[in-house]
Amino acid sequence: MTALSLSEAQAIVTGALADARGRGAQPLAVIVLDAGGHPVAFAREDGATFFRLDIARAKATGALGMGADTRVLAQRAAGNAAFYQGVAVTVGGEIAFSPGGVLVRRDGTVIGAVGISGDTGDCDEDCARAGLRAAGLLAEEAA
Amino acid sequence: MTALSLSEAQAIVTGALADARGRGAQPLAVIVLDAGGHPVAFAREDGATFFRLDIARAKATGALGMGADTRVLAQRAAGNAAFYQGVAVTVGGEIAFSPGGVLVRRDGTVIGAVGISGDTGDCDEDCARAGLRAAGLLAEEAA
Amino acid sequence: MTALSLSEAQAIVTGALADARGRGAQPLAVIVLDAGGHPVAFAREDGATFFRLDIARAKATGALGMGADTRVLAQRAAGNAAFYQGVAVTVGGEIAFSPGGVLVRRDGTVIGAVGISGDTGDCDEDCARAGLRAAGLLAEEAA
Amino acid sequence: MTALSLSEAQAIVTGALADARGRGAQPLAVIVLDAGGHPVAFAREDGATFFRLDIARAKATGALGMGADTRVLAQRAAGNAAFYQGVAVTVGGEIAFSPGGVLVRRDGTVIGAVGISGDTGDCDEDCARAGLRAAGLLAEEAA
Repeated sequence: MTALSLSEAQAIVTGALADARGRGAQPLAVIVLDAGGHPVAFAREDGATFFRLDIARAKATGALGMGADTRVLAQRAAGNAAFYQGVAVTVGGEIAFSPGGVLVRRDGTVIGAVGISGDTGDCDEDCARAGLRAAGLLAEEAA
Repeated sequence: MTALSLSEAQAIVTGALADARGRGAQPLAVIVLDAGGHPVAFAREDGATFFRLDIARAKATGALGMGADTRVLAQRAAGNAAFYQGVAVTVGGEIAFSPGGVLVRRDGTVIGAVGISGDTGDCDEDCARAGLRAAGLLAEEAA
Repeated sequence: MTALSLSEAQAIVTGALADARGRGAQPLAVIVLDAGGHPVAFAREDGATFFRLDIARAKATGALGMGADTRVLAQRAAGNAAFYQGVAVTVGGEIAFSPGGVLVRRDGTVIGAVGISGDTGDCDEDCARAGLRAAGLLAEEAA
Repeated sequence: MTALSLSEAQAIVTGALADARGRGAQPLAVIVLDAGGHPVAFAREDGATFFRLDIARAKATGALGMGADTRVLAQRAAGNAAFYQGVAVTVGGEIAFSPGGVLVRRDGTVIGAVGISGDTGDCDEDCARAGLRAAGLLAEEAA
């Protein structure tokens, strides 16, 4: 399996921010992690406050750590709050219960994750998917 | 943009505590942070117990980190508890969901934040605004 | 034993910074802790970078935690590095091996500590003593 | 003072990595922080292992927190090991005693820092300066 490259990670960041500007989103922080949960590329737009990186990273790390996009994790947490609030503490806050953390796959294998924070969870996730699409890594786009 | 000075930060602290004594508030802790979230000035009144500093700082840092006064953050948290409880863990507890954390602006740009803890959130916030007014930094006072 | 008051702590800060400006010291951070190691007052001068508060606090907390001014702790650490480097980790970095952390006593009893960082350790300590003198708390001044 | 923009931070990263590839440097991690020490942009080259980001960030944060490039901090630490090893613990490891952490100034005011890790400290620092030059932010280049 070919690992996620810096070039691909930067294409995700660039594509996500292009989409955000096109839709007039709030200022965003965008991070891309490799399969081990380690950052590859990151950008925080002018006006995005400093917790946005922490939250974006928590989304991406949470998706990798649990093996599911944070949209799914948020749904699970809503139905089992006591367990997932405990998990948040267990993993040192490296999980976030809101859409915007999306796994990156190549040929069906997880090679990383993208996390975005700054606007609504739905908007953050849309921008993340736009970034994956721009990088040619949006699995669901396959014909 | 001119950064928040120590002189201004001390004026905020002095003004907030003068207001607190004038209204007979509980003993308070007052902290003023610069735009990067780093403390500039702090005072804990006689009788204010030691978590009051931690809570005051969490209010001020939370306001800066999210870009909104903690009155607003408290409202958001009430409507999306799972996400915001997770955020609190993600940022190491450096956010507090109660009024009393107020952004400091100059010419519309955030240059810091004040955080107060000790009485009710409403009273804490009133004292914070009194401190900003005394320092000539309460934007809403503009005619 | 009467606890260190906010008024006394602020007099220490004011006196220390007046002395610093009089001698043309580098920008300083000054913190005053109570006997339990909890901050009572703090000021960071314009131009003092943000680690200065952390170091000032480590000096003051270290003095309280070990029961000796940091001038003494620095001498001990020079003679027993392995032990004291380990202690630094044990206490989470809340100790600093340089002058500038000075115990505050009333009638022979420790009621707090002052910590200063920004210039040389010697200068930091001189300013701390000037602050204690201004507040009427420099034991060695007794006739 | 105009804050460091994302566009400038990305120009620093791009310029630093272009210089690194031109000289055949080892794979690098490059991070750019704002004046408050919060990340604005980051890239980790293919083959750069995961501690490289932590070290790059420690260089940049250490430069900001102490107000000096890490080349200077490394020299100071060599002459006062007990104090600086303690400082490293006090600030949670957010300082690194090797060249490669360089302050970013605009009109003489510090607006951020760049940190690079992956090759020798000297090479890391050269690449950092190349990035600043590419972004038009290398003060020493002024005629």
